[in-house]
Amino acid sequence: MKAITAIIRPEKLEKVKNNLVEVGCYGMTVTEVKGRGRQLGIRESYRGKEYHIDLLPKTRLDIIINDDKVEEVVDTIVKSAQTGDIGDGKIFILPVDDVIRIRTGERGEKAV
Amino acid sequence: MKAITAIIRPEKLEKVKNNLVEVGCYGMTVTEVKGRGRQLGIRESYRGKEYHIDLLPKTRLDIIINDDKVEEVVDTIVKSAQTGDIGDGKIFILPVDDVIRIRTGERGEKAV
Amino acid sequence: MKAITAIIRPEKLEKVKNNLVEVGCYGMTVTEVKGRGRQLGIRESYRGKEYHIDLLPKTRLDIIINDDKVEEVVDTIVKSAQTGDIGDGKIFILPVDDVIRIRTGERGEKAV
Ligand SMILES: Nc1ncnc2c1ncn2[C@@H]1O[C@H](COP(=O)(O)OP(=O)(O)OP(=O)(O)O)[C@@H](O)[C@H]1O
Ligand SMILES: Nc1ncnc2c1ncn2[C@@H]1O[C@H](COP(=O)(O)OP(=O)(O)OP(=O)(O)O)[C@@H](O)[C@H]1O
Ligand SMILES: Nc1ncnc2c1ncn2[C@@H]1O[C@H](COP(=O)(O)OP(=O)(O)OP(=O)(O)O)[C@@H](O)[C@H]1O
Ligand SMILES: [Mg+2]
Ligand SMILES: [Mg+2]
Ligand SMILES: [Mg+2]
Repeated sequence: MKAITAIIRPEKLEKVKNNLVEVGCYGMTVTEVKGRGRQLGIRESYRGKEYHIDLLPKTRLDIIINDDKVEEVVDTIVKSAQTGDIGDGKIFILPVDDVIRIRTGERGEKAV
Repeated sequence: MKAITAIIRPEKLEKVKNNLVEVGCYGMTVTEVKGRGRQLGIRESYRGKEYHIDLLPKTRLDIIINDDKVEEVVDTIVKSAQTGDIGDGKIFILPVDDVIRIRTGERGEKAV
Repeated sequence: MKAITAIIRPEKLEKVKNNLVEVGCYGMTVTEVKGRGRQLGIRESYRGKEYHIDLLPKTRLDIIINDDKVEEVVDTIVKSAQTGDIGDGKIFILPVDDVIRIRTGERGEKAV
């Protein structure tokens, strides 16, 4: 089992969610976050003054998934969230030791 | 050391927190999130129309704990958060390499 | 690659962010959270009555970083976020299997 964390543009959430259903990926947790990447945010000018906005609004998805689905889920997120411009986001994959479904007490792959 | 992430019903937070204290589990981080499980949210009707609510409000708990406490903490969360209806939530256990207490610089098990 | 999660005092975010740039650590994700440590929050009195505030506002930073930078990043967060009073926060280090930059599809260390 793996934990896939994706930080995406908020306006891409709907498309990512729908396309994940198409590949059989249902469960997910969504958190509103802010973030910066390598470019440290953006510069904007407003009424002739320059502002540096460091942390931009992003959407964080957390998905726990069985190993055999990881590549399909990553591909789906990349394809659905990509615009080609800087700031499209990141995906992180972490190892998971165990999963428990609270309703039934089931554990491991069948609890995912 | 392990990272236990639990996604629970918001109305169960108080009970989960109190019961964790009883088993000596104090530190935790709480985040307001939204999520969907295998059933992809719920259908509701309002004034004769059907609505599909995809992401429901949930509460995320993050608890870093020493290995010998993991089973007791998982049991306590399951017992405190369970209603028996779908949507009771999930628990994920991830491996942790190290912990640091910022005030003292302590590391490892004694920093948990 | 490692995932560094730091829970800090919200008023320390600005200093931590700036000092991380100094050591070449740019990308990060920031989440507003609440938490308690070993002391289970604080007791406050207001108009002669005592209140127990269990969960205090904290700021969560998530930073994915290559292994050779971990110690420098941890040191920088500790030095920037420390006041010496209880409640300064915690840092957790978790192993990471893979990272993907969504814009380019790059993977691994160069995607961090
Ligand atoms: N190293 C990192 N650790 C944690 N979060 C990160 C990291 N890098 C990026 N993020 C998160 O991803 C969001 C989007 O980052 P972004 O796509 O700008 O990454 P990037 O590496 O700068 O790639 P690009 O060159 O395509 O902009 C950030 O706002 C932040 O929330
Ligand atoms: N695979 C998953 N990855 C990440 N988060 C998940 C996953 N499955 C569930 N969650 C989170 O847990 C919350 C509750 O899920 P839920 O209890 O409905 O899971 P389930 O597997 O559908 O179990 P049940 O059949 O008991 O409903 C979701 O709203 C979501 O935030
Ligand atoms: N074991 C833990 N698991 C998850 N989050 C924790 C844990 N311990 C602390 N935290 C998070 O860190 C925040 C700050 O904790 P705090 O600094 O009070 O830790 P502490 O261990 O009590 O150290 P101190 O004795 O210096 O107060 C908490 O509000 C919570 O969000
Ligand atoms: Mg960027
Ligand atoms: Mg469900
Ligand atoms: Mg404390």
